[in-house]
Amino acid sequence: MQALWLENNQLSYRDDLPRPTPAVEEALIKVRLAGICATDLELVKGYYPYTGILGHEFVGEIVQAPTAPTRIGQRVVGEINVACGQCDWCLSGYAKHCQQRRVLGIRNQAGAFAEYLCLPLKNLLPVPISLPDEAAVFTEPLAAALAIQEQIHISPSHQVLIIGAGRLGQLIAQTLRLTGCYLWVVARHEQQQQLLSHQQINWLNELTIPQQTFDIVIEATGSASGFSLARQAIRPGGTIVLKSTYHGDMAINFSSLVVDEIQLVGSRCGPLVSALRLLEKQLITPMPLIDGYFSLQEGLRAFERANQAGVFKVLLTGGSDNFMQR
Amino acid sequence: MQALWLENNQLSYRDDLPRPTPAVEEALIKVRLAGICATDLELVKGYYPYTGILGHEFVGEIVQAPTAPTRIGQRVVGEINVACGQCDWCLSGYAKHCQQRRVLGIRNQAGAFAEYLCLPLKNLLPVPISLPDEAAVFTEPLAAALAIQEQIHISPSHQVLIIGAGRLGQLIAQTLRLTGCYLWVVARHEQQQQLLSHQQINWLNELTIPQQTFDIVIEATGSASGFSLARQAIRPGGTIVLKSTYHGDMAINFSSLVVDEIQLVGSRCGPLVSALRLLEKQLITPMPLIDGYFSLQEGLRAFERANQAGVFKVLLTGGSDNFMQR
Repeated sequence: MQALWLENNQLSYRDDLPRPTPAVEEALIKVRLAGICATDLELVKGYYPYTGILGHEFVGEIVQAPTAPTRIGQRVVGEINVACGQCDWCLSGYAKHCQQRRVLGIRNQAGAFAEYLCLPLKNLLPVPISLPDEAAVFTEPLAAALAIQEQIHISPSHQVLIIGAGRLGQLIAQTLRLTGCYLWVVARHEQQQQLLSHQQINWLNELTIPQQTFDIVIEATGSASGFSLARQAIRPGGTIVLKSTYHGDMAINFSSLVVDEIQLVGSRCGPLVSALRLLEKQLITPMPLIDGYFSLQEGLRAFERANQAGVFKVLLTGGSDNFMQR
Repeated sequence: MQALWLENNQLSYRDDLPRPTPAVEEALIKVRLAGICATDLELVKGYYPYTGILGHEFVGEIVQAPTAPTRIGQRVVGEINVACGQCDWCLSGYAKHCQQRRVLGIRNQAGAFAEYLCLPLKNLLPVPISLPDEAAVFTEPLAAALAIQEQIHISPSHQVLIIGAGRLGQLIAQTLRLTGCYLWVVARHEQQQQLLSHQQINWLNELTIPQQTFDIVIEATGSASGFSLARQAIRPGGTIVLKSTYHGDMAINFSSLVVDEIQLVGSRCGPLVSALRLLEKQLITPMPLIDGYFSLQEGLRAFERANQAGVFKVLLTGGSDNFMQR
């Protein structure tokens, strides 16, 4: 089958990979759409040593399910963490932190930039009929945005700043807008600014960020530069949420965190069910974020496009030919 | 008057300083006892550029109070942050983060390693009669220990690790012991271990710390080395509380904080009233932490002693001659 393969920080298009075979309690899924996210770009740069098929944002169709034949034909999105189900973490409800976990397209689990993928049945959530593939493919990154509100309480009177108005920053802005909080987004590119304005979300550029003002700052730039802006914008006693994964260490002054009593909160994956709920009710409108569609064969060009500044979501059409090619 | 003076990272004993004069709404306090803390040692090393009389832990007696003569003779401890009382921070209850604040012996406010000091009357809390000076002098560091529980909820079933069993670590251990949590303390020196054992607090050495186990880890070593131990000991999703202030930056891997969803909480000063309450009820027993008493004239020797590994609280007898000299 066709897929995008990562090995030694080199991404390649391959058409010689075997179609995977679902294990017991797994399903084979034909990928309909898959999204390229900042973590994919970082994986290619060597953020984490992964060899295999990339991709963890997808919507697809179950085409084989040895122990659940009634689910064949179901359109699904998937929880990307494949936990062991037996360790202390799994048994105490922290499956996403299972130390033996595989992670779709990130750790020991072939990913979604392919015609087909396998995942355990329990990881697969049916997509409501009313929800088109082009919206459903945003379920996983939207869940990551919602993780913030799983971890910290954002009240209607909080002053909140999001640093970064890219793929993830835009989704976070849409979720936080629903809280009624006083929300600003740091947006660098005109396309980002327009999209925010269109949704009546305030934006500013990084030269005009008020200092020591915000109760909560979300760092979603995908790069190390965002943290120093966050540190300047946060009020003493405030909380900085870290959403970016990137290669390398950051030097920070711990004493100033202590003196100003700042909280840092690392935040990763979130609740898919809630993401589907918000998408179905059209409280989140992700489709304006779509930059374009590429076939797997055009995959390297898709990655080039996704790497360009200010570009939002680039989608791969996987095993499907339903989508207009660019 | 006599005092210990810091200038250009040089501490000196001086006997030529003028006795300070209280402003309106201030009191002049004769220092009875003052404690040397890790922050003082760091200030001498250049952690923060301060010129003036050091010292912020004290118990003393009001000897002059132009607008409150009835308070003369009162034995007091003091809130070390002298806030402006008028800015947005002060008016919204965050006076300890007032950006114009002076801080006793740390920022623009002559400190407690002296015969006399001045503080606003509203910063001064009366010491209960039953509480001896040798216990009352621990009010400020005990309040700093209690700051942890002002910021995060520690439940009886949490697994908590304190890294560092020095001056502050011991006080934190005593406060957390009262929560009923499952508590361990990393103690390097025999004297630290004995003191913990005596209070039936579990201790271990840094080679036997269980990995990725604790819900909450308190970093109280006063040095950069403690953080990497904390990072190893914390469970995914757990909270690391930072209590140490020291010079310089730390390099940390932000991506791993994101993937493991770790929270970092900077923690500084705490509630003096609650500290006095616990001391008065003898729920905290600080006096075994006293290493010895030095006069101001012996101040440099006192600092040498406080700098030695495993030494607990070194006290300066200030303007008082009530205390046995070493």
